[in-house]
Amino acid sequence: MTDTSEITALADTYVAAAWDKDVERFLSIYDNQIFSYDTWESWSIAGIRNWEAMVREWFGSLQKERVRVTIEPERVEMSDGLAFVAAAISYAAIAPDDRELRSMTTRMTWVARKTDAGWRVIHEHGSAPIGFADLKADLRGPQS
Amino acid sequence: MTDTSEITALADTYVAAAWDKDVERFLSIYDNQIFSYDTWESWSIAGIRNWEAMVREWFGSLQKERVRVTIEPERVEMSDGLAFVAAAISYAAIAPDDRELRSMTTRMTWVARKTDAGWRVIHEHGSAPIGFADLKADLRGPQS
Repeated sequence: MTDTSEITALADTYVAAAWDKDVERFLSIYDNQIFSYDTWESWSIAGIRNWEAMVREWFGSLQKERVRVTIEPERVEMSDGLAFVAAAISYAAIAPDDRELRSMTTRMTWVARKTDAGWRVIHEHGSAPIGFADLKADLRGPQS
Repeated sequence: MTDTSEITALADTYVAAAWDKDVERFLSIYDNQIFSYDTWESWSIAGIRNWEAMVREWFGSLQKERVRVTIEPERVEMSDGLAFVAAAISYAAIAPDDRELRSMTTRMTWVARKTDAGWRVIHEHGSAPIGFADLKADLRGPQS
């Protein structure tokens, strides 16, 4: 199965919804049972309501800025029922006058499941590599 | 499909091979096309030969210590051709007198593909969550 367009369409929705700060559209690509290892702060986020809270906090923090997301897939693979994407995902903060204020790039893995309503992301893993020399990540595990 | 024993068997092999510092056995669970977002240092590691170099460096750094790995799956899902595991993975350094010298726990995602030879890991994503307050991860992306 080589038609990966249905999976990359999820990325297009993510990008458009982030630009518009549209929480409902953003959440539409995720399964209700989403289980995320997010880049920031917490060990994991489970379930669409907790995921929604993270998204609302993110969009709510942006004020006049917008976020221009760019997703560059490095690997995509599909089977009948599951698919995965490994991608570089960049977030650029754009001022009202179109200046880019700052940006960063992280690594993202998606696992998607085919449902009656189409493909939905059931697992997201975001991260940046950690240097041994300046180790500051939280290595205490899920109890922390 | 709910029999996830073939996938968790990959974890058992990972644990046993790490304890024995057995490079070949460790590599046996990975596909030749493995694409890894590793927890440490580099953006990505692609292909079994580069992955082997990382494993040899890891095992070679251990001297008299052994590594007791514990993998606790938080999500497992399978289809006919692909499977994924999201797990807490702990690494404890064990001295020759059985003392635990140190340990850490990171987050791991595996995506596995069913091949003629059995299930093989085609994607691994390891990380620890990053605190905003002490951000030290590398956010420059794949060019760095």
